[in-house]
Amino acid sequence: MKLPTDPAANLAALIRCASVTPAEGGALGALEDMLKPLGFSVERPVFSEDGTPDIENLYARRSGNGPHLMFAGHTDVVPVGDEAAWTHPPFAADIANGEMYGRGAVDMKGGIACFIAAVARHVEENGGPKGSVSLLITGDEEGPAINGTTKLLEWAAGKGEKWDASIVGEPTNPDALGDMIKIGRRGSLSGSVVVNGRQGHAAYPQLADNPVRGLMSLVDALLYPAFDEGTKDFQATNLEVTSIDVGNPATNVIPAKATATFNIRFNDTWTAETIQAEIHNRLDQAAGRTKYRPGKKTPVDYDIVWRDRPSHVFLTRDDRLIETLSQSVKTAIGRKPALSTSGGTSDARFIKDYCPVVEFGLVGKTMHMVDERVALADLETLTQIYQRFIEDWFERGAA
Amino acid sequence: MKLPTDPAANLAALIRCASVTPAEGGALGALEDMLKPLGFSVERPVFSEDGTPDIENLYARRSGNGPHLMFAGHTDVVPVGDEAAWTHPPFAADIANGEMYGRGAVDMKGGIACFIAAVARHVEENGGPKGSVSLLITGDEEGPAINGTTKLLEWAAGKGEKWDASIVGEPTNPDALGDMIKIGRRGSLSGSVVVNGRQGHAAYPQLADNPVRGLMSLVDALLYPAFDEGTKDFQATNLEVTSIDVGNPATNVIPAKATATFNIRFNDTWTAETIQAEIHNRLDQAAGRTKYRPGKKTPVDYDIVWRDRPSHVFLTRDDRLIETLSQSVKTAIGRKPALSTSGGTSDARFIKDYCPVVEFGLVGKTMHMVDERVALADLETLTQIYQRFIEDWFERGAA
Ligand SMILES: [Zn+2]
Ligand SMILES: [Zn+2]
Repeated sequence: MKLPTDPAANLAALIRCASVTPAEGGALGALEDMLKPLGFSVERPVFSEDGTPDIENLYARRSGNGPHLMFAGHTDVVPVGDEAAWTHPPFAADIANGEMYGRGAVDMKGGIACFIAAVARHVEENGGPKGSVSLLITGDEEGPAINGTTKLLEWAAGKGEKWDASIVGEPTNPDALGDMIKIGRRGSLSGSVVVNGRQGHAAYPQLADNPVRGLMSLVDALLYPAFDEGTKDFQATNLEVTSIDVGNPATNVIPAKATATFNIRFNDTWTAETIQAEIHNRLDQAAGRTKYRPGKKTPVDYDIVWRDRPSHVFLTRDDRLIETLSQSVKTAIGRKPALSTSGGTSDARFIKDYCPVVEFGLVGKTMHMVDERVALADLETLTQIYQRFIEDWFERGAA
Repeated sequence: MKLPTDPAANLAALIRCASVTPAEGGALGALEDMLKPLGFSVERPVFSEDGTPDIENLYARRSGNGPHLMFAGHTDVVPVGDEAAWTHPPFAADIANGEMYGRGAVDMKGGIACFIAAVARHVEENGGPKGSVSLLITGDEEGPAINGTTKLLEWAAGKGEKWDASIVGEPTNPDALGDMIKIGRRGSLSGSVVVNGRQGHAAYPQLADNPVRGLMSLVDALLYPAFDEGTKDFQATNLEVTSIDVGNPATNVIPAKATATFNIRFNDTWTAETIQAEIHNRLDQAAGRTKYRPGKKTPVDYDIVWRDRPSHVFLTRDDRLIETLSQSVKTAIGRKPALSTSGGTSDARFIKDYCPVVEFGLVGKTMHMVDERVALADLETLTQIYQRFIEDWFERGAA
């Protein structure tokens, strides 16, 4: 029987499944077909929650006598956007000039395809890893992420699964394969500040209380001064005001309410709790001493509404895991990757509560774009890196 | 024949005409019926403009041998709002506890009713004023004001009409009849500042340019420091930011554009042109030196869009007109009114280009509100004030 040792063939099979979140699209079935001949036991738990679509997920384990390595990822993809603008159809896996086109090519069916090829080559060449290898694959990473990785981790842990390390196959390289391993992520938190004023006529401001005046001071306190200057491992914490909304069409009317919404990406100087406390403190201070409300004696009347759940900051401290992966990259491409904590959040933020986790995959340049595509050479190189990593990590054992 | 000497009867007839802008509702016809027996010649010009409703207006003149006094006002009224919330129906002119209820009772059918009663008493008692009296009444003061007072003035002036003084019957008194004559008004100007940024992901702010950061500095420059501290005749110039709008629902996305809309009420330190220049100057300065855009070398990219036409500031310098009206008030109520330039704009801003103009009418407390109403005693007192003013002004002659 032919094992799935060719990452391009694996990826083509996956791209041809139109698995736009929340659709499974046959992608998990295709994975199952690849994994079973390699000795994996495969389960396909479906998770539900009121108000969200049911989501199919996959957990596959190839048991061995030694530590347990988990590969995590997702087969769901973002919508294709303007389909007519694609040079090759988004679900065809066409190859042109050494590149395979398709939605999910790098984010992140490609990473999964390479990892499976790496395990398959290991099985073919050495009879497979000494320890246990599992794949934890969700169909809900690009969607609301409610019936995906968090529930899958709880479900597996509830059955007694324990992992010694995890690698997430997201496209971590900005420009060229081997650029960057992600060893942590900033936290993320969003909220809205609502200032309550008193409506009135623009000609009689003394009878009204323009909430925009109060909001100006509160937004100033959010934006300035900087929260920190960054740490050894992380960029500076940064806050962006993503919207301000009043919605008053009448230029002779002072409005009653003004809202600013913000997102903050915070480093390991903070926890979600301490950064929330800092923001409360800044706003309270600013509410009492604004230069924009001459003659108003009361502090600015405001509420803060935190949105969604915070993403917690994390940094992986497992040097052996990081070093083994770095060396595998260096062996394949001749240079060591940067160790980074930049960029947005990923499912690694959930996995870090179970075992040390790093992220390494393909080149992200075309992700979420029209003409998402991957160089066939990159697929081959990533497969070699993963294979080398699997061999060396089991050789060295868990930390 | 019974002349319209009773202001309450005149007002009841006007209130019963449902003349919500742009409807004439019979109100101008009712005026015509009152004015003709007093010796007025009445014309009812209709003005039109593409995209706006046709509006009926009224110009009535009682010619005499002497100076020419013009009374200006409007019979159109604002909508009734929540009709069920009225204690008495808005178009019934019910009387309860010495007050007459109805939309327009004070703003400003009441003022017109009193002026006509004053002329009628003058005619009955003394055979009428020596000079000329005219009424310039629009049906488009509460609406877009395009087919109203400005066109009516042009039309009348085009026929050779010349006026020596004007009194506008708007409800100028904040609390009690006789409180306040308005002898000028601040100018008013509205605009929007649009900041153009670059959209991006909230986790990669260095690749984007958040327009909210730029807008913060521009709005700061609009609000602070104060434009002036007021003048002998006027309150301080004041700017209100009436709306800020971004409309970005995604907290992980940095938006492309942010808009702030403002209205400025400016005093005689400025003209519409100099205050515009000051605002341009403040914005240009702020665009180049903002603390909110660290690392961005370019100035904030913004446009300013001026809205509508500016209202120009004016101050009436005709001491004889002002003094005659003040004395008429003092004779009726025992104290002199304040001479004010506060509050919003009015049609006096158009009249001031033709002759000196002051504003004096009823008590404005209930204007534009549910249960708009007027004390019958106020109607009688205002009629006496207007009658005394007419007698004395023609006695003294024009300035
Ligand atoms: Zn992804
Ligand atoms: Zn009015």
